[in-house]
Amino acid sequence: MTRDHGGNLDFALARFGGRLEDWIDLSTGINRRPYPVPTLEPRHWNALPSQSDIASLHETARQAYSARASVLAVAGAQAAIQLLPRLAPAGRARVLAPTYNEYVPVLGDAGWQVEDVHEIDELAGADLAVAVNPNNPDGRQHDPARLLALLSRVKRLVVDESFADAVPQVSLATETGRAGLVVLRSFGKFYGLAGLRLGFVLGGEADVTALTAMAGPWPISGAAIAIGEKALRDRDWADATRARLEKDSLRLDGLARGAGWKLIGGTPLFRLYDVGDAAVAQERLARVHIWSRIFKDQPNWLRLGLPGDESEWTRLTAALSAR
Amino acid sequence: MTRDHGGNLDFALARFGGRLEDWIDLSTGINRRPYPVPTLEPRHWNALPSQSDIASLHETARQAYSARASVLAVAGAQAAIQLLPRLAPAGRARVLAPTYNEYVPVLGDAGWQVEDVHEIDELAGADLAVAVNPNNPDGRQHDPARLLALLSRVKRLVVDESFADAVPQVSLATETGRAGLVVLRSFGKFYGLAGLRLGFVLGGEADVTALTAMAGPWPISGAAIAIGEKALRDRDWADATRARLEKDSLRLDGLARGAGWKLIGGTPLFRLYDVGDAAVAQERLARVHIWSRIFKDQPNWLRLGLPGDESEWTRLTAALSAR
Repeated sequence: MTRDHGGNLDFALARFGGRLEDWIDLSTGINRRPYPVPTLEPRHWNALPSQSDIASLHETARQAYSARASVLAVAGAQAAIQLLPRLAPAGRARVLAPTYNEYVPVLGDAGWQVEDVHEIDELAGADLAVAVNPNNPDGRQHDPARLLALLSRVKRLVVDESFADAVPQVSLATETGRAGLVVLRSFGKFYGLAGLRLGFVLGGEADVTALTAMAGPWPISGAAIAIGEKALRDRDWADATRARLEKDSLRLDGLARGAGWKLIGGTPLFRLYDVGDAAVAQERLARVHIWSRIFKDQPNWLRLGLPGDESEWTRLTAALSAR
Repeated sequence: MTRDHGGNLDFALARFGGRLEDWIDLSTGINRRPYPVPTLEPRHWNALPSQSDIASLHETARQAYSARASVLAVAGAQAAIQLLPRLAPAGRARVLAPTYNEYVPVLGDAGWQVEDVHEIDELAGADLAVAVNPNNPDGRQHDPARLLALLSRVKRLVVDESFADAVPQVSLATETGRAGLVVLRSFGKFYGLAGLRLGFVLGGEADVTALTAMAGPWPISGAAIAIGEKALRDRDWADATRARLEKDSLRLDGLARGAGWKLIGGTPLFRLYDVGDAAVAQERLARVHIWSRIFKDQPNWLRLGLPGDESEWTRLTAALSAR
C-alpha cells in the first residue's frame, strides 16, 4: 500500500545488512547538512500550539517565500497533497508527468479522473492541474511565466515547489493570491528536517480557509513551529546552504561522470543519472551501505541525494571508483 | 473561526497582561507534570519517519491500550476527528452532548446531519454515533457495556477516550476489532505533551486502512514516534501518574470546596465546578495569572486542570482563599 518514495532504509537494511547508523541515505532529496535544531522551550512540547504562534509562523513563511497570499502551515507538503482533492468536487485532474508519485493515486482515490500529461499546454482544460517545479525526479524546471499563463485555462493550478528553496528563481510564491493558484512548499527537504513534518500552502484566501478547516486547529507540532520560525528567518544559513548545495551538486556530477553515468537532470538537492542498469548500480552502492533511489518504470534511472560531511563524500567516491 | 478549547493563553495575556511564563494554564486537561522528553537521535529530526518505526509504535500502542485491533498513529486525537466524517458517505450522526465542541461542526461541515442527544440509548439508529468517555467537560463516565451494546444499533460507534488514560477501566480499547467500533486515544493530555501532536485510532481493519490512506504516509513526526514509543512502554511512570492525578484531583476539590464551589464532575486530569458566576471567578483567577476555562452556554461552569508543582498549588490556594 505504501508507495516507494526513497528513504526506505528498512528495505535496504533487510536486504543488504548493516546497522541503521552505518548507512548513508542518498535515496531522498533531503539535505544531509540540516539546520541545527535549537533547544526548545518546555511549552513547545507541553502546550497546544497557540493561535498566535501559528499566525507568527505564517507571517514568517510569507516573508521567507516572498508571498503576499494567505498561508497555512501543514505537517509537510504531503499533508497538503492529502487535502487537495477536497478543494473542489472531483472533476478532471491533469498531472505533468513523470513526477512525484503521490498525486495520481491520491486524486484517483478521491474520485478524480486523473490524466498524466507531458507538456505544460496539455494541462489546459483541467479542473485541477498539477506541476512540480522543479520536478522530481528529473529536476526539470518549468518556465514560471508559462505556468502562470495557464491560470486562465484551468480551474485551479497547484505548483508543488518542494525542491524550490535551492532554486528560488522558479518560484511562483510571489504570484500567490491570484485566483486559482496554489503553491506548496516543503520545509523538511532544504532544511534537512524531514522528521519535523512541516510544509506550507500558499494560495488565495478562500482556498486557504477551506484547507485550514480541513486541517483542524493544531496540524503541526510545537517543535515545528519553533524550529520553522527560527530557520525561515535565518537568511544567512539559507544563502550559504544554497551556495554549498550548488557546488556540491556539481561535485557529485563529477563523480558520476567518472563512473560513466550520464546526467539526466536534477536540482541542487538531488541528481538523476542514466546509469545503464540501475538495479546493478544500486546494489553496488548498497553493498557499501550507500542507499540510492531507482525507478521501476525507468530501468536506467538512478537518483542520488548529496552526501553531507567529507567522510560521506570519501565513501561515495570510493564506491564509485571501485569498478 | 477557531473554536474555544481552553489553552488560549493568547487571549488571557491580551486581556490580563503578564508574560507567558507568568501564567499557570489550568484551562485545559493537559497534565502539567509531563513525561520527561528524552534526547532524540538526529534521525528523528532529519529523516522521514520510517515504516518500521511507525509499525513499532503501532504495536506499542496496541499493547499499552490492551487493544487487539488495528492501530493508526495520527497527529493528535483531533487529527482523527478531522478524518472521521469521510469514513462513510454523509448520513445521520448523533453526538452524546454536551461534549467536546469539535464533533458537531466538523461533521456538519462535511455534510452530515448532526443531532445532539443526551442519553446513550438516543444514539441508536445513527449512521455515526459519538460518545466521549470520560466526557469533556463534565467528566461523566459512560458504562462501557452500555456503549458496547449500542454497536448492533448504529452503523459506526466512535468512542473518544482522550481522557481515559487516567481511568482505564472505562476503556473499550480491549473490544476494538468489533465491526463498527472506533476508539480514539490522545497521547498529549495524560503525558503532558500536547505540543507533540500524537494520538491513536483503534478500530477494525477496514476503517483503519481507510484512515491510513486519508492520513498519508508520514502523518506524525519523528519526535512523536520516538517519545511516544518510550512513554507508552513506561508502565511505572503511567501507574505513578495515575495515582498522583487521583490524589491531586481530590486536593483540588478540597480547595474548590473551601472557595464555595460545587463539584459537577471531572476526571483525574480536570474538574468541572459550579462556581456561581463563572466569568467573575475566571477573572479573579486571571488577575493573579491563573487561566481557567468557562463555557458560553453554561454561565455557572468553570473547568480547572490540575496544578503541577507545589509552587503552582501555593498560588492557586492563595487565589482561592482571597475572597
